[in-house]
Amino acid sequence: MTTKKKKTGGLAGVVAGQTAICTVGTEGKGLDYRGYSIFDLAEHATFEEVAFLLLYGELPMIKELDSFKARLRSKRALPEAVAQTLEKIPATAHPMDVLRTGCSMLGVIEPENSFDDQLPTAERLLATFPSMLAYWHRFVTDGTRIDFESNEDGIAGYFLEKLHGKAPSDLMREAMDCSLILYAEHEFNASTFTARVCTATLSDMHSAITGAIGTLRGPLHGGANEAAMELIEKFSTPDEAEAGIMEMLANKSLIMGFGHRVYTVSDPRNEVIKGWAKRLGEEVGDTVLYPVSERIADVMWREKKLFPNLDFFSASAYHFMGIPTALFTPIFVLSRVSGWAAHVIEQRSNNRLIRPGAEYIGPGSRDFVAIEDREPDGGMV
Amino acid sequence: MTTKKKKTGGLAGVVAGQTAICTVGTEGKGLDYRGYSIFDLAEHATFEEVAFLLLYGELPMIKELDSFKARLRSKRALPEAVAQTLEKIPATAHPMDVLRTGCSMLGVIEPENSFDDQLPTAERLLATFPSMLAYWHRFVTDGTRIDFESNEDGIAGYFLEKLHGKAPSDLMREAMDCSLILYAEHEFNASTFTARVCTATLSDMHSAITGAIGTLRGPLHGGANEAAMELIEKFSTPDEAEAGIMEMLANKSLIMGFGHRVYTVSDPRNEVIKGWAKRLGEEVGDTVLYPVSERIADVMWREKKLFPNLDFFSASAYHFMGIPTALFTPIFVLSRVSGWAAHVIEQRSNNRLIRPGAEYIGPGSRDFVAIEDREPDGGMV
Ligand SMILES: CC(C)(COP(=O)(O)OP(=O)(O)OC[C@H]1O[C@@H](n2cnc3c(N)ncnc32)[C@H](O)[C@@H]1OP(=O)(O)O)[C@@H](O)C(=O)NCCC(=O)NCCS
Ligand SMILES: CC(C)(COP(=O)(O)OP(=O)(O)OC[C@H]1O[C@@H](n2cnc3c(N)ncnc32)[C@H](O)[C@@H]1OP(=O)(O)O)[C@@H](O)C(=O)NCCC(=O)NCCS
Repeated sequence: MTTKKKKTGGLAGVVAGQTAICTVGTEGKGLDYRGYSIFDLAEHATFEEVAFLLLYGELPMIKELDSFKARLRSKRALPEAVAQTLEKIPATAHPMDVLRTGCSMLGVIEPENSFDDQLPTAERLLATFPSMLAYWHRFVTDGTRIDFESNEDGIAGYFLEKLHGKAPSDLMREAMDCSLILYAEHEFNASTFTARVCTATLSDMHSAITGAIGTLRGPLHGGANEAAMELIEKFSTPDEAEAGIMEMLANKSLIMGFGHRVYTVSDPRNEVIKGWAKRLGEEVGDTVLYPVSERIADVMWREKKLFPNLDFFSASAYHFMGIPTALFTPIFVLSRVSGWAAHVIEQRSNNRLIRPGAEYIGPGSRDFVAIEDREPDGGMV
Repeated sequence: MTTKKKKTGGLAGVVAGQTAICTVGTEGKGLDYRGYSIFDLAEHATFEEVAFLLLYGELPMIKELDSFKARLRSKRALPEAVAQTLEKIPATAHPMDVLRTGCSMLGVIEPENSFDDQLPTAERLLATFPSMLAYWHRFVTDGTRIDFESNEDGIAGYFLEKLHGKAPSDLMREAMDCSLILYAEHEFNASTFTARVCTATLSDMHSAITGAIGTLRGPLHGGANEAAMELIEKFSTPDEAEAGIMEMLANKSLIMGFGHRVYTVSDPRNEVIKGWAKRLGEEVGDTVLYPVSERIADVMWREKKLFPNLDFFSASAYHFMGIPTALFTPIFVLSRVSGWAAHVIEQRSNNRLIRPGAEYIGPGSRDFVAIEDREPDGGMV
């Protein structure tokens, strides 16, 4: 197939449905959640306010937010069978597989018996993913079975505390909270679209979210933040990075953390996360990763007019927070589950089976040949 | 939203990609796998030959089939951690959740480390799903921990033997084998499409198949065979069934096991499975279910010009084989994994991210309001 033909694939530009949750790419760069600009939300809101906005359609009043947060806190503990399943997962496993399996197992133990349970089910997932990830990580790294008690009020602080076994600094808590806001929702991206295709058969919330996790795992989607880190870490100076990227571009390699299906001139989330990466780098005394990252971004723009997407500077930001690279994409799950669940709920509210067609390019009608008469490569005797 | 608008949704008629695996709905009714008619395959082939055709592109020669089947037999045993996870799943769980979780856990224990492993990974899934389903079912129903040894050469016989704890009759083995052929592949149906959306992010085989299982679970898709059984069982005579269906139609209820997105005049698989249901009904001395099913089909055609799809007569066929209703959709998985895996492999061979757009129907740009100034329903102070 020619490159030209390929560019028409992947449902690029095809409208697959309606949504009231998010707009991506207004003027090639804007991003709004339910009409609110991502810049306002990143600056003024907390992740829980944003998750409430996505799930319930409006920003919460003080009392609504308080009770939402109280519900989330009360839902943090893992069922015994889920914890035991996580303990069976080896340290070498990919943490995205851990969350995929944990989500599926939670659905087994606490099924969404009716669509009337969809909002409590969504809240339970939002509350338990940080517990699952930290539980498994701590169990396989130092044998600790963490408990789920915490004075941390919000998801960002709770996750960092459980991961590191101590309260995070204010800067790190705030940076993580903002990163969760940025990752929360992104219209019909591949993982959300998976959740909607699944939901449209009238399947359950856990199936939809499990499928979305598996989709997010891929390096062309959520997996890009891990891949970006692996790339950035290879270089010890900006000049080395420039030479390395030039070589990769000459070899037509993909540079992870750059480009986007919908944005054409920039990813608005980049400037926000880049600011955090810079501040965090200063806090931990970095003199390499941030300058290397900046140079890579400069080279990519100069050479290919490709801009960093959210994943690129998220990599160094998470690294400065002391988070192991393999947990970067799972953190995306902790946040995006709010958007996924909002889309599940929206799809159900006006459902039709999502079942496209295909262009057939295979062999024409052929006669069946009995096995003893077959020839290699499907030829007939 | 009006019904008229709704009919344009769900990607109906939209070409989402190319495939050489299957054609659905030629002249509103035909079905070919890689150019071979479903009637020929159902009559002359075994399920393993069909699975080979789907995965490898051509019908196998005798030696190829022998070694394919030997590999499948050698891959039946479950890893300890998977068996232990299944034991944690309560008897009340939905068996589709069991396979979804088992598939995800298998991916954790035996990850597809490289796309070079895709065919062995697909074979492993094909070989282990019958083991997973029978293992969990027997463990929760009679406490037996089945082993994975068997003289049954093929998947149909192996599954029935492990499920029932004894060798199946020849008729039942043959009927199950044919049913697996009919369920094996169906172009861009919702679960396969989920697998392709997932795969297009370059995620792994287990993620794609796990997502597909969750999608198949929905009652508008694979779940229809269970829903059809629940419906059929409600009636004790054809006349009662006729009255019941007339009432349901008057209430605008969906009748599960009827209709199709792509077929317009009939589902070719129906006449094949209907024949098996009749023969099996005769073998077990049925005088109710088959006549009731036939009447429902007559009424649906007379009243709505809707025809039974594969799921409708699969229900009674499986019932006559002594299979509990809750296992009907999981059997679909045992078969369809061959088609799903073929699509994963095909998607990888010419990949582009599958990421559609959406029509935005939500609120326009709004100013952020600080939490203390918010009014109920998102109004501003
Ligand atoms: C995000 C992405 C999948 C969008 O894919 P898409 O809309 O299908 O874009 P295309 O693959 O058509 O890309 C257009 C061209 O730019 C090139 N390109 C896109 N992203 C690139 C990148 N990160 N590095 C190098 N080249 C890139 C493509 O190779 C293609 O070149 P071609 O026309 O010569 O084949 C793609 O930009 C990408 O793979 N980026 C890297 C992974 C990543 O960061 N993902 C996270 C997204 S938030
Ligand atoms: C398979 C199915 C999801 C296809 O969906 P679709 O292509 O979106 O079809 P639509 O929902 O547009 O159906 C067209 C019309 O036929 C009606 N219809 C379709 N299948 C019906 C059924 N099984 N019982 C009653 N009415 C049915 C729809 O209600 C619709 O009527 P409307 O135009 O007045 O709204 C649909 O036929 C269905 O729900 N069938 C029952 C579930 C089933 O058997 N699934 C297994 C498929 S292999």
